[in-house]
Formats: sequence, C-alpha cells, structure tokens
Amino acid sequence: MTQINHNYTLLQGSYLFSEIAKRRTKFMQDNPNAQIISLGIGDVTRGLPDAITKAMHDAVDELSNPSTFRGYGPEQGYDFLINDIINNDYKARGIDIATNEVFVSDGSKCDVGNIQEIFSQDAVIAVQDPVYPVYVDTNVMAGRSGKFNKETNQYENIVYLKCDASNNFTPSLPDRKVDLIYLCYPNNPTGMTLSKEELKRWVDFAKANDCIILYDSAYEAFIQEADVPRSIYEIEGAKEVAIEFRSFSKTAGFTGVRCAYTVVPRELKAKDADGNAVLVNDLWNRRHTTKFNGVSYVTQRGAAAIYTPEGKAQIASIIDYYMTNAGIIREGLASLGLEVFGGVNAPYIWLKTPNGLDSWAFFDKLLSEANIVGTPGVGFGQAGQGYFRLTAFGSRENTEKAVERITKLSL
Amino acid sequence: MTQINHNYTLLQGSYLFSEIAKRRTKFMQDNPNAQIISLGIGDVTRGLPDAITKAMHDAVDELSNPSTFRGYGPEQGYDFLINDIINNDYKARGIDIATNEVFVSDGSKCDVGNIQEIFSQDAVIAVQDPVYPVYVDTNVMAGRSGKFNKETNQYENIVYLKCDASNNFTPSLPDRKVDLIYLCYPNNPTGMTLSKEELKRWVDFAKANDCIILYDSAYEAFIQEADVPRSIYEIEGAKEVAIEFRSFSKTAGFTGVRCAYTVVPRELKAKDADGNAVLVNDLWNRRHTTKFNGVSYVTQRGAAAIYTPEGKAQIASIIDYYMTNAGIIREGLASLGLEVFGGVNAPYIWLKTPNGLDSWAFFDKLLSEANIVGTPGVGFGQAGQGYFRLTAFGSRENTEKAVERITKLSL
Repeated sequence: MTQINHNYTLLQGSYLFSEIAKRRTKFMQDNPNAQIISLGIGDVTRGLPDAITKAMHDAVDELSNPSTFRGYGPEQGYDFLINDIINNDYKARGIDIATNEVFVSDGSKCDVGNIQEIFSQDAVIAVQDPVYPVYVDTNVMAGRSGKFNKETNQYENIVYLKCDASNNFTPSLPDRKVDLIYLCYPNNPTGMTLSKEELKRWVDFAKANDCIILYDSAYEAFIQEADVPRSIYEIEGAKEVAIEFRSFSKTAGFTGVRCAYTVVPRELKAKDADGNAVLVNDLWNRRHTTKFNGVSYVTQRGAAAIYTPEGKAQIASIIDYYMTNAGIIREGLASLGLEVFGGVNAPYIWLKTPNGLDSWAFFDKLLSEANIVGTPGVGFGQAGQGYFRLTAFGSRENTEKAVERITKLSL
Repeated sequence: MTQINHNYTLLQGSYLFSEIAKRRTKFMQDNPNAQIISLGIGDVTRGLPDAITKAMHDAVDELSNPSTFRGYGPEQGYDFLINDIINNDYKARGIDIATNEVFVSDGSKCDVGNIQEIFSQDAVIAVQDPVYPVYVDTNVMAGRSGKFNKETNQYENIVYLKCDASNNFTPSLPDRKVDLIYLCYPNNPTGMTLSKEELKRWVDFAKANDCIILYDSAYEAFIQEADVPRSIYEIEGAKEVAIEFRSFSKTAGFTGVRCAYTVVPRELKAKDADGNAVLVNDLWNRRHTTKFNGVSYVTQRGAAAIYTPEGKAQIASIIDYYMTNAGIIREGLASLGLEVFGGVNAPYIWLKTPNGLDSWAFFDKLLSEANIVGTPGVGFGQAGQGYFRLTAFGSRENTEKAVERITKLSL
C-alpha cells in the first residue's frame, strides 16, 4: 500500500473546535430542552452590511451576462480590491505597499496554514502559547514539530513563547535560534495587544537574529486604542522581516463569504541551499498561482464594498456592536471578582477560571450549569491551562443573558 | 537568513499560462490594433444560468439578515450540496457514496494540488504525458520530483506515461513501481477519453500493484458518448484504489465563482510507517479541516442550483453550445488536412502541428499570423511537443472567426 505522510500520526486528537462541537452535541442530545448560548467558536452573527450585499448582487448580475461575465481572475486578486486594500489599510497610515505585494485569498486560515510550505523543512518555528492551533498543526503536518510530549503538552521541536498573566501576555523572546515566529495581534485567544514599543522589540529581534515574523492581524478592525499598532509595517524596517495576514472574516462578517489577504513585501528575503538571497514574495507568488485559483469574483466585489464610505460606516457600527458586547462580558465577569483580560481591542475575553478549575472542567461546568459554550484555554496550548475564552460575537440579547447566567453560578 | 523550501528552485520557468499571457501581452503592445481571439486557457465565456444566479441572489439576501445569516459552515461543505452531489452524480448512476466521502472545495486546482500532502514524501508519482502542469509542479514543491533534465524535458524521479497518437492517447502502464497515478479523463489537454475496459485495466493495475489513482474528472459534464465512463467508481473495486476530483468550473461556468468537490471513499487505505492500514479519508478530512475553511455559502447555494430541473436544463444548453464549438473547430481543422484529436467528449481539441513545427513555434505563428492564442502542447510535457491545444470555450462568433482565420493561413 501507498505510504501516508507519517507526520499526520503526530497530530494530537481532534482539532479543538471539533472536540467542542462533539461535547456540545452530546449535551444537547442528553438535554434537548437546554437553550444553549454559544460564545465559543469565534464566529460572527450580524448580517452582512447593505453596501456589501448590494455589491454582491451587482456582481452576480454581471456574471449572468456573457458581455460582463468574468471567468478566471488573477490568482492574486483583482486590482480593484488590491488597490482598495493598499489605499485604505496601508497608504492612509503612511505605509507604502505595492500591488504585487498583496495576495487576496479565501481566508487567513488557508494563508497562515500554507505559508510554511515555502520555507525549509528544517526551519525552527516559534509560536505564542496559547496559540491558534492552525499554526502548530500545519507545521506538524510538514514535519517540523518532532514528537508530542504528553507531559509538557508541547511538541519537542517547537519553541513556545509563554503568554500569561505573569508577563502581561507579552511573549518572552525565544531562548534558542528560531527561523519563523508566528505572532497574532490583537491576539487570538487572549484578546490582548502589543504596544508599538513591544512590537518594535520583535522586529528588532527578527532583524538581529535573521528570522521572519508571520504576523496574523485578523482582528485589526477591533482595535479601539490609538497607540496600538494596526499593522506590523508601522514599525520601521518591518518590511524586511515580516509577512502580514489580514482577514475580512471578522471585520465584515465574511466567515461564510471567505476573503482575506496576505502582504509579502519585496524587501523580505530568505536564502536558498547555496546561501543566495531569494525574494519570499516570488516564492509565495509561485505557490499561490500554482495551488490556488483566486477568490470568487462575487466575494471580491463584496470585499471592495467594505472600503466605500457606506461600507465603512456600516462596518464601524457592527464592530461597535461587538465591542459593546465585549464590554458587557468583561465588566460583568470582573464584577463577579473574576480575573479577565482582553476585550478592549479585540472581540475575545480571556478569563482565569475560578477556584483553580482546569479549562475543560470549566467548559463542562459552564455547559452543564449555564448552558454556555466557550473555548477551553488549554485547547490553545499549555499556557492556556486554567484560562477560558469567551467571544463578543453573540447577539446582544444572548450576550446579556450569558452574563446573567454566569452571575447566578456558584463560582 | 531563513532557508527556503529548496524544492522550489527545481521548478521550471513560469507556470505555462503565465508564459502565454506574457507573450500575448507583448504581442498586443507591439500590435495594438490586432483583434486577438483566445482559444488558449480553458476558461468559459457564457454567463451563469438563471437558476444559479437566482440561488446566489437568494443566498446573498439570507446573509444580509441576522436571523438567516450563516457564518462558518462545515469545512467539508453543506449537506444540502453534498446530498445533491451524491444523488445526482453518483446514486443516479448506481454508485453508492456516503456524505462523509464528499469534500466540497473552492476548486479542483487546489484539491489536485493539495492531495499529495497526505502521502509520503517518498511516494513515486506517475503522470500522463502530456499533463496538466499542477500535478507535476505541486510534487516538485513537495520534493518528490528529483532534478529536471533539460534534455528529456522531464523530472528524473517522476514516471511519465506517454499519451500520443501512436497509442491513441491511452497511457502506457508504468514500467516501475509507482504509488500515486494521476489520470485525467476526459483528458486535459488532449480531449481524449478512456473506454470502460481501458479504465478497468487501470483499476486492476492499481489493485494488483498497491497504488492509488488520483482521477481528475473535471470535464465529465462534456461527455457525449454513452460508453464513456463518467466516474471511475463505475468500475468495480475502484473505491478501494481511487480518489475522484470533480469541478463546477467548466460544467456551470464557475471558473470565477469557485466550487469543486473531491470524493475520498472510506474503502481507500494507505499504510503508516509501521505498516498499519490508515483510512485516506481520515487524513484528507484532517487536512481539509485544518487548512481550509469551507466554500462561500453564496457559491454553495449557486452550485446546488445546478442540480435543480431548471439548472440542469440551462447547463445542458451551455454544454451543447460549447460542444457545437468543439465540432466547428474539429471539423474545420480536419477539412484543412490537419490531424485533430479530442473535441468529441471534451471541450479541448488537440491538433498535430503542421509541417513538423514545434509547439511554441506554432503558438507564435498562430498569434502573429492569425491573432489566435492557443496553448502549446509541449507546455504540458515532452509528449505534447508538436501538438497544440485549442478550446471550445469561446463565443460562437469567435470560434467561427478563428477557424476562418486558420483556413486562410499557409500551413
């Protein structure tokens, strides 16, 4: 028989959200009348703004007519969208990005999962702990992780940068040579951010130590405070060391519509086997054009509408809705004496579980006693043990109801 | 500096269609008044059928309302679409496929490109020659190709199965042990098909030799003749040895809308490092859920409309339109004494270049003298040298005009 990619056998159990779905389904089967509120998986709930749906309707009509029909588009995305991205997300902030540095895709999960392919199999990767599982799992599949150590709950060849209350969720610098550093800010799952000075420390570190930062900024739209950097390219020299990932999923309700983009600056270099410098942008372009065929035209038109005056206003109001939810959760739980983090510049609230409960025990307690589904912190890594993530993406009614139910628990 | 995936340095030149686009752009710059007709890249030109656009409009409306909004769907696709696929494409032909064997994706290019990831890096791959470049390039990137030999125009570790007029484009069986065999029928680029008996020979070979067939059936909808198999699973025992890829791109004008699916039967097994059998379906499910986040809901609703009575009728009429074009090209060129293949059960016509011209020389001649863009056969592999691909996806007017222009050439 054909041999499998044996790295797959090193993967641990189910993907986190599958396990949550399984426990939730089991509970619902046993308790068919329970009114479950999900503040678990980070999925949005508001409808798409009118400016976006109008643009999508128009695009569907265009496709229905042979004279305006569009088939294959550029794999990297249409210029109309790339230019909107550059002008609004970068140029408006004084950052100079060229059209061939932006790659539109069908989701940041794909991009952050696929980016490792263009680097050496020997690359040492560093991730924050806790961490979005996709960074780790895709490197396990690629053979960069080594074995999983059940005692430490970590892979032996991955460098984990601990982020917990003891360091105010600011990751410690790696204690050995690393090649690729995944940073996520505003952070999923902790909801915390880095200041410009802290982010500069990472850019400087990457420069001094010849490594590349993979900067996942999927939650940028939720930043409320002025001094929090919205792009890693706000830091001088970052274009020489960083790839930035952005998504419309949470910004504009695109979790079911699928659009994101990745910026790979032409200044960013890596080296080939002979030590010659290679443009990472060229490698990603080759990967993207060989294995991907572009994002739905209808979706790209919808994404471009995000940048119209109407689109911007409508999105701002949705972000405001979610961030009001975040405040309700944050303040509601804090008033119960719980230790809460995040929720100020991000739609995630990260709480210390009460009475030293472990994360899954608190998950089960919250599910069975309050019928609330959240996400166990330990599912994001060992440093998340004893923490728990709630999201601000529910409806206002459910968010308020959830906080009320938690208030009634004996914690 | 961080090391790159050095396999990328083994890739040859640009991706075929980028090279074509480059030459075309250059010609247009030098000849701004030329009226170019493209019968090159296999992209459709008719508008989306009404049944599909109506379903897409309805889906956009659903997303605009919080009470009907859908965020993340199942990564594998919605059941409504999977059930339509199973009932229409398989059950109706007596083939039993379960819902967890179908994986909806945003394109067959992605699926046929990504499928190799779940197999061993040591797997020996066999491809037809000529071949859709994505099969080869994605295996080069993964380190399975060995070096490129400029003299043979082939990679040293890839097994090429020659398909030319001498064997009626029926691939020769591999002359050494292989693990993964990519077969594409109806074939891109030759437009030829296999009979049931010939396909059975491959299934039997895979069984006898413990290998897996990756069966790309993206052009199935164009099959006109009754005895041509539409699915590899029409062959008994194929579920134990084959993965099948299907696409809505050409079937329903989805090249810009993006939807396809892959069937991975639960009977299909491979082995892990200890020789234990592993379900390939489980591996692909893990890959799909870890690195992909599902297809746009709007797109999936559009795809489901393909299976309604209105959708079926409208699609049949578009397929008929393209196949009439195919007949016009086929008969037009044959009447000039050219040797033509394909075009009966596929939208591709594969022609022997006249007077022993090599493929790119014929490309340049056709571009400069008739202002027609086609695809050089050698771009698909060495066995395609001296052949040329034309597609039936143009408008009727352009197709007729193209044949007329070719008629006037001195060939």
